[in-house]
Amino acid sequence: METVSKALSHGGVQGVYRHESAATRCPMTFAVYLPPQAADGPVPVLWYLSGLTCTHANVMDKGEYRRAAARHGVAFVAPDTSPRGPGVPDDPDDWKFGCGAGFYLDATEAPYAEHYRMRSYVADELPALVGANFPVDLSRQGILGHSMGGHGALTLALTYPERYRSCSAFAPIVQPSTAGWSAPAFERYLGADRAAWRAHDATALIEDGHRFPEFLVDQGTADSFLDDGLRPHLLKEACARAGIGLTLNLREGYDHSYFFISTFMDDHVAWAAERLRG
Amino acid sequence: METVSKALSHGGVQGVYRHESAATRCPMTFAVYLPPQAADGPVPVLWYLSGLTCTHANVMDKGEYRRAAARHGVAFVAPDTSPRGPGVPDDPDDWKFGCGAGFYLDATEAPYAEHYRMRSYVADELPALVGANFPVDLSRQGILGHSMGGHGALTLALTYPERYRSCSAFAPIVQPSTAGWSAPAFERYLGADRAAWRAHDATALIEDGHRFPEFLVDQGTADSFLDDGLRPHLLKEACARAGIGLTLNLREGYDHSYFFISTFMDDHVAWAAERLRG
Repeated sequence: METVSKALSHGGVQGVYRHESAATRCPMTFAVYLPPQAADGPVPVLWYLSGLTCTHANVMDKGEYRRAAARHGVAFVAPDTSPRGPGVPDDPDDWKFGCGAGFYLDATEAPYAEHYRMRSYVADELPALVGANFPVDLSRQGILGHSMGGHGALTLALTYPERYRSCSAFAPIVQPSTAGWSAPAFERYLGADRAAWRAHDATALIEDGHRFPEFLVDQGTADSFLDDGLRPHLLKEACARAGIGLTLNLREGYDHSYFFISTFMDDHVAWAAERLRG
Repeated sequence: METVSKALSHGGVQGVYRHESAATRCPMTFAVYLPPQAADGPVPVLWYLSGLTCTHANVMDKGEYRRAAARHGVAFVAPDTSPRGPGVPDDPDDWKFGCGAGFYLDATEAPYAEHYRMRSYVADELPALVGANFPVDLSRQGILGHSMGGHGALTLALTYPERYRSCSAFAPIVQPSTAGWSAPAFERYLGADRAAWRAHDATALIEDGHRFPEFLVDQGTADSFLDDGLRPHLLKEACARAGIGLTLNLREGYDHSYFFISTFMDDHVAWAAERLRG
């Protein structure tokens, strides 16, 4: 693991690191914020999954999470959203597929199956790497994300409920297998058989019996993707049927951007921190 | 004036606007954050001047000022750092001169004098434009900035003490006429006669009798430009000799980046807000 940069911020250290990933078979870059409390021993860790087109840098630059992470003593890790680089198949004309659009799944279709293994990367490889190199307590992990990363957070929490003590999302894609901006990617990554898609769809996972104690979701009402791609009511209905707790905050006038995310980041970090305590 | 974008954030509105500037004779882009209190009537306005290479966007994305501006009910305006565009003379190989490096002065030398008039733009034209188009109270203006923008804030406050009620800076260039990264630009903008440079140099202005009630300065001790370009002790000595109040916070281990600025932004907005009250 190589250190790309490190800077003091809000009393802790914001670093960027790079390593050769076994899961994605390419170099991967990620950001880790260690709060000041990490100097005294392992701290809980919060995984933040970003949306389409993002890298580790978007939330690091615009997410305004460091103050809350420092206050609550939580590490905050932001991976990239896909494999990248020479040899990684891409579709540069489609921002909803390929580089920047890994959808936090393990692709099974050629030629994507070789590198597009973001589920294994985010759920297994990166926690092991971060656990070995930073003072974090892997028995206290939380996960959150935005848009495609909200989809990632929800599906990972539902798939591995024993690994995460908290899960929240900003404007998540709650049913990617039926949304116009994600279903085509699912077909290319996972093949035409929609049964295989259910393992990567939050509402389908809930229908199929997966459970997580509770979710926090913030959604802007002026989000241009609201009705077409996001559709929080589908998650609300699925959670209600399954008896899963859902705090769904519809935020009047807010859009899909980091201007929205940064406004409510404090709430999400505080909500996670409460569930990650001792 | 044209609206480029608008988004709700921290309860207020973050907008980006563009207009044809009479001062710089080119289109200029700037960012305005209006706090929620602006819905009820004019609010004080804080001008933030950015450092070398920046546009309006750097502090808008990374400055983490919106929460504090919303709490204190202060508008926050970030102009660009220079004229830009076809016809604006530039030196693309030098990040310390030309586009992105206007140094908040009115150039007197050809070919720069035609467009490089950032002092007139920031002190006169932009306040008039913002005052006419947004609910701000121009009798309550404060100014702050970073690095080259810290130089801009200090020199404007010392030149027009009647216009600004507060002035603060992050890692300012306090004596640009003798710093290696600014003196060459001064020579090209203002000519070889160094007497003309004194009007754009904070320590020289103080020596020449200009006064401002008090300054707040934060400076990271791990700032790679500290000893060469910034030299806060020169401001400290000048203020001490002149009886100007200076709160100089040396921040152990912090660098020159927005990771540093965002950490102490709250303090600067609160400090300004206290001096901008009713």
